[in-house]
Amino acid sequence: LRDLHARLPTGPDAVSFGLGMPSAELFPNAAYGRAVAQLLASDPKALQYALPSPVLKRHIVALMSLRGVTCSPDQVFLTAGGQQGISLLSRLFLDPGRVVVADEVTYEGFSAAIQPVRPRVLTVPVDADVGSDPDALQSLLRRGARPAFVYLIPDGHNPLGCSMPLDARRKFVALAREFQVLMVEDGAYGLLQYDEKPAPPLRALDDEWVCYVGSFSKILAPAIRVGWLVVPTWMIPLLSRTKQGEDLDVGNLNQCALATYLDAEDFPRHLERLRSEYRVRRDRMLAALKAHFPVGTRWNHPSCGFYIWCELPPGLDATERVDAAIAAAVSFVPGDVFRLGGRQLRGSMRLSFSTYAPNRIEEGIRRLGWVLHAVTDPGSPGHVGHVVVGGDW
Amino acid sequence: LRDLHARLPTGPDAVSFGLGMPSAELFPNAAYGRAVAQLLASDPKALQYALPSPVLKRHIVALMSLRGVTCSPDQVFLTAGGQQGISLLSRLFLDPGRVVVADEVTYEGFSAAIQPVRPRVLTVPVDADVGSDPDALQSLLRRGARPAFVYLIPDGHNPLGCSMPLDARRKFVALAREFQVLMVEDGAYGLLQYDEKPAPPLRALDDEWVCYVGSFSKILAPAIRVGWLVVPTWMIPLLSRTKQGEDLDVGNLNQCALATYLDAEDFPRHLERLRSEYRVRRDRMLAALKAHFPVGTRWNHPSCGFYIWCELPPGLDATERVDAAIAAAVSFVPGDVFRLGGRQLRGSMRLSFSTYAPNRIEEGIRRLGWVLHAVTDPGSPGHVGHVVVGGDW
Repeated sequence: LRDLHARLPTGPDAVSFGLGMPSAELFPNAAYGRAVAQLLASDPKALQYALPSPVLKRHIVALMSLRGVTCSPDQVFLTAGGQQGISLLSRLFLDPGRVVVADEVTYEGFSAAIQPVRPRVLTVPVDADVGSDPDALQSLLRRGARPAFVYLIPDGHNPLGCSMPLDARRKFVALAREFQVLMVEDGAYGLLQYDEKPAPPLRALDDEWVCYVGSFSKILAPAIRVGWLVVPTWMIPLLSRTKQGEDLDVGNLNQCALATYLDAEDFPRHLERLRSEYRVRRDRMLAALKAHFPVGTRWNHPSCGFYIWCELPPGLDATERVDAAIAAAVSFVPGDVFRLGGRQLRGSMRLSFSTYAPNRIEEGIRRLGWVLHAVTDPGSPGHVGHVVVGGDW
Repeated sequence: LRDLHARLPTGPDAVSFGLGMPSAELFPNAAYGRAVAQLLASDPKALQYALPSPVLKRHIVALMSLRGVTCSPDQVFLTAGGQQGISLLSRLFLDPGRVVVADEVTYEGFSAAIQPVRPRVLTVPVDADVGSDPDALQSLLRRGARPAFVYLIPDGHNPLGCSMPLDARRKFVALAREFQVLMVEDGAYGLLQYDEKPAPPLRALDDEWVCYVGSFSKILAPAIRVGWLVVPTWMIPLLSRTKQGEDLDVGNLNQCALATYLDAEDFPRHLERLRSEYRVRRDRMLAALKAHFPVGTRWNHPSCGFYIWCELPPGLDATERVDAAIAAAVSFVPGDVFRLGGRQLRGSMRLSFSTYAPNRIEEGIRRLGWVLHAVTDPGSPGHVGHVVVGGDW
């Protein structure tokens, strides 16, 4: 993904649907600046070593309650973003040869996190409408698999965009209890729900076998590098020791500035603003796909997160179109990047609708449509009027 | 060490010589606050994902030149503090059973960093006046040891406080070249030199086999969590991939705010102010030790860094005095904490002179002197006038 980032044209026309970057227009630069200024002016030790911020932990407990999760500050572990949460849990529970289960198409940062500990990876099928398959996990467990944990992204799946129905969530939690297997629930997008009454996270259904991975990257700002875990209390000292060896686990300026920001601001209102804006962008991308993508393309209709998953018509290879797209100053991530197991995914792509304003999204999808049509019809850059409507998936 | 931190009395009288905390009075809260404000006001993407800051890398190149090191920005790798640099190099080069060499008394964060990768540890003797013994390393290498790397702290050794003479540095570099063994040089304190003409770091003597670990924690502020490595360019993509799996390695607010701060401020002058103040604190602690510690105690006279190493007279056990010290609202770290191999160190302690103003140092050492005298003379809390002068070591 970083290679793709480095290759994206950076001109004023460039539209990236590739990386999961939040909208810069929605960053609270002014309010965050005020928080940093207030902290530095009022606390002479704001730049000193300190233990993880207890004030921030209490804010996170409040944030989790917005998702229907009851937890206490002593179950919250602060991390440098969600990625460090996944990495710490992997280091804590995995060993070479130890088994871990994940979706056969999943967040590529999960593969990067587990790679150094070289576990044995088993996969379960995942569907772009309903997410991970609990029956497949049941079958693995019944056949004797004893994974250290199961990694799931129940809300706004990365890269598939889908969210799991309540029924599947209940099944996963029941399996966790029956087989005493930890579930690592990646909730990085969980507070970005666009529809009414989303299903509760796994952590709301079980507090013993579910480790929740949270992050401020998508809901506030990635550059502050603050995330969290909600875990059973017995894990906290183990996580702390692991993190100390990695980066000392000393409370930092960002943690305290964020706590000051959350003290001063109406964060639920900020979240509502994000949801409202991202909902518009999702809808604009869905409409643009319908208008500009080749007939036979299928896509889903995410209710959460940043991503739409597209499957191109037979014969169209997404990976082969990356260069042509970049030449047209537009980017996406070919589906194969996210493959952990199972069949090749050369006909699919992940599109992020989060980064750009609606008009840029429209323009980018129009250009990407050209690039895709160019394969089936070499004259297609002038072909826009003839585009046939693709179907919802 | 964190346990010790948690137990330290926090009253207004408390004096900690335990943790290596820089002086909070020397933190540039106002200037750093201006830098953050300027960055957030001028760059709408300051809170976005971004690659490591190239501006900060150029500042680090300039900083390294103050130590006589010639390097280029493409040899600089940005980390979340020096600890992450050590941890990343350990993950990159060590494996279970792979050999690593370090001082038999060394930074306890090094032990924490290597622990998850379970290497085989060989040690070399280290002297509180002249540091690590190159002849011992030569002997290990001649007998066939092939370590992945050798971890050294040539300047302001933690915990011993000593700096290596030039002759020993040359020997280590010659061994690195002869046996093609990497040297990991921890330079966290290297810019805090209190005497004239310090010896150059190993990295100034060799750019192929030396990896330099740098940090802003001791010379600016720990809470911003910014450090760096200077390594051969071939290592950069490997470090980047490892860091991506851990915490995404995305340039962050702190990196860019620090670069803005360094653009605006006269950093060499800031360093001179630190050196001048810490030199006074060191001298005050040396004088206080002479005035208040039991006869027969020996200590060294550091020319760099934060620490003085004390060896108590026979019969005095530092570890056993920790609780009595805390009861007297003063703390130190018993030497045994830093032992990686070799004999027990129950008669020694590390004292940090960095954290408190000179008068507090005087008061803390006086109290610690009481605590130590209480063992040899139960009536000693009223015994101050009779303290016999200890010798320099």
